[in-house]
Amino acid sequence: MSVETAVKLESVDITSGFWQRYRQLVVREVLPYQWAVMNDEADIEITMDPQRNGQDRSSHAVANLRIAAGRMDGHHYGFPFQDTDVYKWLEAAAYSMSYAPNPDLKRITDDLVELIAAAQQPDGYLSTFFQIEAPERRFKRLQQSHELYTMGHYIEAGVAYYEVTGSKLALEIARRMADCIDENFGLSEGKIPGYDGHAEIELALARLFEVTGVQRYLDLAHFFLSQRGVDPEFFERQIEADGWERDLIPIMRGLPRRYYQAAEPIRDQKTADGHAVRVVYLCCGMAYVARLTGDRDLLDACHRLWEDIVSRRMYITGNIGSTTAGEAFTYDYDLPADTMYGETCASVGMSFFARQMLEIEPRGEYADVLEKELFNGALSGMSLDGRHFFYVNPLEADPAATAGNPGKSHVLTQRADWFGCACCPANLARLIASVDRYLYTVSGTAILSHQFIANTATFTDGVRITQTNDFPWDGEIRYEIDNPVRRAFKLGLRIPSWSAGTARLTVDGVARDIDARDGFAYVNVDSSRLTIELELDMSVRLMRASNRVRETFGKLAVQRGPIVYAAEQADNEGPLWLYTLGHDMKTDARYESDLLEGVEIIQVDARRQPQDGADAALYTDAAAAPAEAARLTLIPYFAWANRENGQMQVWLNSGD
Amino acid sequence: MSVETAVKLESVDITSGFWQRYRQLVVREVLPYQWAVMNDEADIEITMDPQRNGQDRSSHAVANLRIAAGRMDGHHYGFPFQDTDVYKWLEAAAYSMSYAPNPDLKRITDDLVELIAAAQQPDGYLSTFFQIEAPERRFKRLQQSHELYTMGHYIEAGVAYYEVTGSKLALEIARRMADCIDENFGLSEGKIPGYDGHAEIELALARLFEVTGVQRYLDLAHFFLSQRGVDPEFFERQIEADGWERDLIPIMRGLPRRYYQAAEPIRDQKTADGHAVRVVYLCCGMAYVARLTGDRDLLDACHRLWEDIVSRRMYITGNIGSTTAGEAFTYDYDLPADTMYGETCASVGMSFFARQMLEIEPRGEYADVLEKELFNGALSGMSLDGRHFFYVNPLEADPAATAGNPGKSHVLTQRADWFGCACCPANLARLIASVDRYLYTVSGTAILSHQFIANTATFTDGVRITQTNDFPWDGEIRYEIDNPVRRAFKLGLRIPSWSAGTARLTVDGVARDIDARDGFAYVNVDSSRLTIELELDMSVRLMRASNRVRETFGKLAVQRGPIVYAAEQADNEGPLWLYTLGHDMKTDARYESDLLEGVEIIQVDARRQPQDGADAALYTDAAAAPAEAARLTLIPYFAWANRENGQMQVWLNSGD
Repeated sequence: MSVETAVKLESVDITSGFWQRYRQLVVREVLPYQWAVMNDEADIEITMDPQRNGQDRSSHAVANLRIAAGRMDGHHYGFPFQDTDVYKWLEAAAYSMSYAPNPDLKRITDDLVELIAAAQQPDGYLSTFFQIEAPERRFKRLQQSHELYTMGHYIEAGVAYYEVTGSKLALEIARRMADCIDENFGLSEGKIPGYDGHAEIELALARLFEVTGVQRYLDLAHFFLSQRGVDPEFFERQIEADGWERDLIPIMRGLPRRYYQAAEPIRDQKTADGHAVRVVYLCCGMAYVARLTGDRDLLDACHRLWEDIVSRRMYITGNIGSTTAGEAFTYDYDLPADTMYGETCASVGMSFFARQMLEIEPRGEYADVLEKELFNGALSGMSLDGRHFFYVNPLEADPAATAGNPGKSHVLTQRADWFGCACCPANLARLIASVDRYLYTVSGTAILSHQFIANTATFTDGVRITQTNDFPWDGEIRYEIDNPVRRAFKLGLRIPSWSAGTARLTVDGVARDIDARDGFAYVNVDSSRLTIELELDMSVRLMRASNRVRETFGKLAVQRGPIVYAAEQADNEGPLWLYTLGHDMKTDARYESDLLEGVEIIQVDARRQPQDGADAALYTDAAAAPAEAARLTLIPYFAWANRENGQMQVWLNSGD
Repeated sequence: MSVETAVKLESVDITSGFWQRYRQLVVREVLPYQWAVMNDEADIEITMDPQRNGQDRSSHAVANLRIAAGRMDGHHYGFPFQDTDVYKWLEAAAYSMSYAPNPDLKRITDDLVELIAAAQQPDGYLSTFFQIEAPERRFKRLQQSHELYTMGHYIEAGVAYYEVTGSKLALEIARRMADCIDENFGLSEGKIPGYDGHAEIELALARLFEVTGVQRYLDLAHFFLSQRGVDPEFFERQIEADGWERDLIPIMRGLPRRYYQAAEPIRDQKTADGHAVRVVYLCCGMAYVARLTGDRDLLDACHRLWEDIVSRRMYITGNIGSTTAGEAFTYDYDLPADTMYGETCASVGMSFFARQMLEIEPRGEYADVLEKELFNGALSGMSLDGRHFFYVNPLEADPAATAGNPGKSHVLTQRADWFGCACCPANLARLIASVDRYLYTVSGTAILSHQFIANTATFTDGVRITQTNDFPWDGEIRYEIDNPVRRAFKLGLRIPSWSAGTARLTVDGVARDIDARDGFAYVNVDSSRLTIELELDMSVRLMRASNRVRETFGKLAVQRGPIVYAAEQADNEGPLWLYTLGHDMKTDARYESDLLEGVEIIQVDARRQPQDGADAALYTDAAAAPAEAARLTLIPYFAWANRENGQMQVWLNSGD
């Protein structure tokens, strides 16, 4: 037996038909469309969040950079963090060029990087809002300024662009930003003992440290995490000291400290409270820095918040954020379907968090949640045409409610062209374009395969793993392993929670008992070739939530593999609440290649109450209600709202 | 047969034990308590509506009048309509003295009337906010100013005080206000072609017309109703013309015209939209003026809006207003139990509307709704001790949701001492103190008895009707009629919708078929004595809503007589949503004299799912859930939240 040296992942090519379609859509539609929007060259309608009170006449995001670079006159327009739309787009574009090199796109992105360099100030600072509108307020209003958040997003983009294209300028901009921040923040005299109201810089600095090896960046990330909430009055005192009357973002006046995860040190925070995206970006940064520094307290906080989110505050689709007020978490087991938020960015951020946890610990639970987001809660944020987006992802929607009840006006029932606050579209694009980075982690001599997204991956010594399947529609997962130098390693295959106890494994044609540890079945590899077949249980399952959840009591959801299903009015006569499912009703699953770009649909034998007449009394004596046999057609949740406008429900009434 | 001359109602003495308790509570607790609060002499906590952003440190309502009268220095504090708290209290005090003369109270109210006279300006204007803070803006900001609303409330109080005590000063103040308004409003040159953002003056002027006979007042009321919405831009143009930056009530910026029922002429309005209290006050004014003028268009609008409210927008308890946003109606069949508003004032206003409709047409449906409000939705606004009040009356409440979900933070689970916007407490007090005015209408030679509130009433020619019963707990309703001059008249007895087809009637011991017309059974009276016994069906009934209501699909409510029941955590182990009722479950009703000042409770055999463990998975495969036999104890809805804080539900899950 040879001395075992660490295995390294060298490349991943995605071959999954499902994901190839999305990744080519990013190249073909999403990136050109978003670039046109950010350059104000698209004829679109910009949807304003009803909570916001700005005017939403254009994106202006690229124009802001031009103005800051002195290449154009004018005022900043949009949110103080408008720059991040461009940076997330640049990051997505960078990833896309790793699987779809594109000289035309490369010219645009090179020019963009050059524009960003021109907009950057000599000391490395870059926030077009402050440079154009309020240079004297730099770093003086951190609660709402998003300056570090904004630069953090550039740092992520710059690192990605450098990694894919080798652009030294892209990396240099990032380093100069980090140096500027390092110059200005810290506990020593004259520095600001604070942090940004929106986490992001922490994970960005950790990422910059990984690519540059500069310890200062990691230390700075760690400082921000340690300092957060230590002085709960920091933000308010800063605003008071500044004395400027104007709010940077008017609706943020009066949001509580917990909204910003700044009420107490994060090491003391027990529950996932406040703005959901901030929480998961913060958790991602904590996990990242915990792994790189070994800080046990940070890791404990990650475990605590992970557990709270996943066990008590997450929708069955992976969405998080139970209220539109502050786009926030509420309290344990509070999971209303119709007034919820479920921001696309929050599901994207949850994917980041899950990925970081997988880098620390080989636990299938993290990969389960990642899968839940990739195939449900995050993916629903984009239309099948790549040009329409959801900010809010409800589990129940009704156009009449959206139009008629102000408590649900944030729940769009059709995806928008763009948003006044357009954080989500490019965020989802960068997740899809980088999904190859979420498939494996290697730890010592173990390779962990987290997702059933077909791919070919190469590792140290020419080890190659070819995963083929027709997932998520089919559960036959095949792994071909080429191991030319007969290196000895373990391959950990994730046994998803939805197939625990029902999956079947064969290795070179020989059936094996699955003895999963923390959600992974391990196969020792030391031959030059090996074929593994994993058969996952793709039965249609009726799911229920814990009855601690008031909103879903007596309701059922339908799931098959990782895919959560939804009923839409496009397939079923409304109102959808008139249908009831039994616990043992017959279901059929069938692949429809012409429907919604190809989806497995599910048909369920259900019952349906005849609708009461419009002239019937509003309240009457109850009697066991008549119900007629009916057939309910369900489609994958991620694909809803791609046809005519109508009602949608994930949770369906039950009644045996 | 004598020539029939019109019968007139002369007096009503309430003898009902149930209502006597409430009416004595008004005298003993409610009036002294509210007077102390309005004089800032009570040690209380003032609850701020989360939507408001004022400081709520005191009532200051009487102090504002003192300042306006020049008897005290200082600034106005509170809402522009703060004066109305005092006026509604004065009106309630006036009514109370009709059944409980009270020299101590009379000294206070006489002094108060004298203070109001002193605060009134020479031309009759009175609004302490404008007099103290912005005299130059008189009548210039009608959308939010509430000036006519405020004076309207005084006019109602002044008329009531005059009627009960004979105070000429009280009436004179009212007439001077009406003259001032008449001087300033109208379509002729130099007058304001507008109306108040909050209806009230219309019904008040009609009432003043009835007591004074001055036609100008009725014409002015009719003008306000005809002019409303004719120029939909009136409010905005007035604000623009005024040019003052400050909003009188900041949260009202941006509310749509429909909020104020000012988007189109009320004759064209098809649905009950906007602020629920404004709608029902407007409807009450329309009905009042329609009756006095014979304006058929106004009556049609009343019918249309009544039908929309009662058939599609009213909770089973009579509450109205489905959303906290604008305290408003939403859309047909949108009746969520947990995010609703159901303002106490809206149920009080709906009672006013119903009463006015009864004055026009003898239809039991109006009396049914009035009863629903009196015994449920309105009454729940006050605690059994008379010192705590609800603004919002939910049909489902959970302290955890109120504390943890901002979409439900307006739903208090315990009544408050007082409110920053304190419209409800005195409004309910004046309804209770004047409930004797809601029992009869006379039309030609017919006397209609609308309510089963025990009383003795005297009419023309010594006709006396003595109604005795133990309603709402018992359904035996006895009428003794004394008719010394053997006058011929018809007595219309309401057959409530909840006992239609099941009531039994005997006249002088002889059973009679009930041939109800529009909800009334008519008995001809021409003897000197007559005894009528009406036996109403007091069975416990399981009720359901139309299945056009999404929120109550598959849920049941329990009703007995007019009383809607609720489950409270004080009697039943939570969470309450774990209980399910069957359609044929056994129920027991039992009077509990020591509970909640004496109530009939209902016990229902139900089933209860064991609660899932806190460590159970959030989502699992569904199976027919185990449920254990359980007994659910229900109390009348109006009496909820008089014990320890906990969950409450009117609508209960069902499952056969």
